[in-house]
Amino acid sequence: MKARSLKSLGEFGLIDLIRKWTPKHRNVLRGIGDDAAVLRSTRGRTQLLSIDTIVEDVDFRKRDATPQQIGWKALAVNLSDIAAMGGIPTAAVVSLTMPRNTPLRFVKGFFDGIKRLSDRFGVALVGGDLSRGSKISSSVAILGEVPRNQATLRSGARVGDVICVTGRFGGSILGRHLTFAPRIAEGRFLATSGVTSMIDVSDGLMQDLGHLVSSSKLAFQMDATKIPVTSAAKRLARGNRARALEHALYDGEDFELLFTISSKRFARVEQHWKKRFQTPLTAIGRIVRRKGSPSVRSGQGYQHF
Amino acid sequence: MKARSLKSLGEFGLIDLIRKWTPKHRNVLRGIGDDAAVLRSTRGRTQLLSIDTIVEDVDFRKRDATPQQIGWKALAVNLSDIAAMGGIPTAAVVSLTMPRNTPLRFVKGFFDGIKRLSDRFGVALVGGDLSRGSKISSSVAILGEVPRNQATLRSGARVGDVICVTGRFGGSILGRHLTFAPRIAEGRFLATSGVTSMIDVSDGLMQDLGHLVSSSKLAFQMDATKIPVTSAAKRLARGNRARALEHALYDGEDFELLFTISSKRFARVEQHWKKRFQTPLTAIGRIVRRKGSPSVRSGQGYQHF
Repeated sequence: MKARSLKSLGEFGLIDLIRKWTPKHRNVLRGIGDDAAVLRSTRGRTQLLSIDTIVEDVDFRKRDATPQQIGWKALAVNLSDIAAMGGIPTAAVVSLTMPRNTPLRFVKGFFDGIKRLSDRFGVALVGGDLSRGSKISSSVAILGEVPRNQATLRSGARVGDVICVTGRFGGSILGRHLTFAPRIAEGRFLATSGVTSMIDVSDGLMQDLGHLVSSSKLAFQMDATKIPVTSAAKRLARGNRARALEHALYDGEDFELLFTISSKRFARVEQHWKKRFQTPLTAIGRIVRRKGSPSVRSGQGYQHF
Repeated sequence: MKARSLKSLGEFGLIDLIRKWTPKHRNVLRGIGDDAAVLRSTRGRTQLLSIDTIVEDVDFRKRDATPQQIGWKALAVNLSDIAAMGGIPTAAVVSLTMPRNTPLRFVKGFFDGIKRLSDRFGVALVGGDLSRGSKISSSVAILGEVPRNQATLRSGARVGDVICVTGRFGGSILGRHLTFAPRIAEGRFLATSGVTSMIDVSDGLMQDLGHLVSSSKLAFQMDATKIPVTSAAKRLARGNRARALEHALYDGEDFELLFTISSKRFARVEQHWKKRFQTPLTAIGRIVRRKGSPSVRSGQGYQHF
């Protein structure tokens, strides 16, 4: 094998390769390549399993984040994956790596942040691991469940489906990436409302929309004027609307839900949504047949390598 | 709270604190503080969930370990936790953190090592996460199962029980910590043979025996001449028997099983063992009532902080 670097391959090229290297298993309904794995379980239930790591100076900086926020984020990014599958999180294990001279109050704060979030969603913190390392990092693995046939995959979108998002996008670096509320209740509601595909927006709206349509081997048309933009993105753009939109499309770490649904069903969902949730719900485009490139330029979004 | 350091508290003092910070949940039969969490499941089965992290320059050095061995170890330390619970591993998720300039052949080798081991034990690799960091580290979370009431906990030892170990101890730093075979089949067999408590030896035989007896609020008597010592430990000790024994007692990373069982049952287990396994099985002591300190001095073993 040539000494190819990770950079030339990119994070998602690498994930595709890893998927090819690893065999399929019975009882695995969906393995590598979705927000969480979908495992066959008993009694009409399906289990979800996922892992996510946050690393100091990549996913947070110690000077910008409290220990509570770091713990919150370590668990929240995982809950967002379960939300994207339409699932209910049940149990989590937490691995925390940190330098030897870390003060105990950091550890206490970190677990306070985890506990505040796990209490809110009824997730049991059932175990973990402590390791030493030169920087702080934390991996959380989460177990969830979903009634059989309700797990919402990235694939499944159909031509003509409406493309929708929860919440607003862009500028999460100004703070929201440390404090966001995972869309668990919204994800459950959508999974029972007949969405055809769903993903959470972590790498950027454009990039995750790209993942979603390519899983379904389709393309999209998007109305950029419809994209809900956060006030943080507007602040970053200093009043320049085009730049604010760029933040919304490419920043990432929004941890909102992006999904597709038939237009008929969308009308019904919209009716019920406002009674249940304060989170905005917005139709931003449509799924179309794949002909060539998508009709809005596909930017880079966030890649780790 | 005083700014206590992790070092003054120690890894296990910290784990005790974290356990106090986190609430108990229904459906969690055993949470923080065993080799894996034990979760109530359906249809006479119990689920196991565990996470373990290995970090460059703490758990391996790049110049001493091949990428395959690093991948192997990342999964193997988790399989050892499932083995200690008497469980069967079913699915794993792998998080890999590495510098941006990591060559692709490292990643390929790492997943080759994981795949070789997961194939051997029928574990499905169902997902993961790639992150960027200044050093290589990997967290693996593993899901397993065990027939109801068969999970072997650290607690449960009874006065008079024989203390037994699989395999040999000491000197794993010379290579075995990267190549060991997790004792899954042995653990399953023991779980069906009436062992009263079980743990895997990762922090050192003395320290893990300490964890085991303190979980049961008991003490032990040990015959140090019975401890099976590896040739690696003897090599490190250069023929000095007392030093070789010290390596066996305190080095850690042996990933053998340590368990307790009634003497009557032990006789039966010994009979069947040799027909099934090549791994040595050795009785090294007895569980006694707690009166004060244990009868062999309790050394430090490995602690991360």
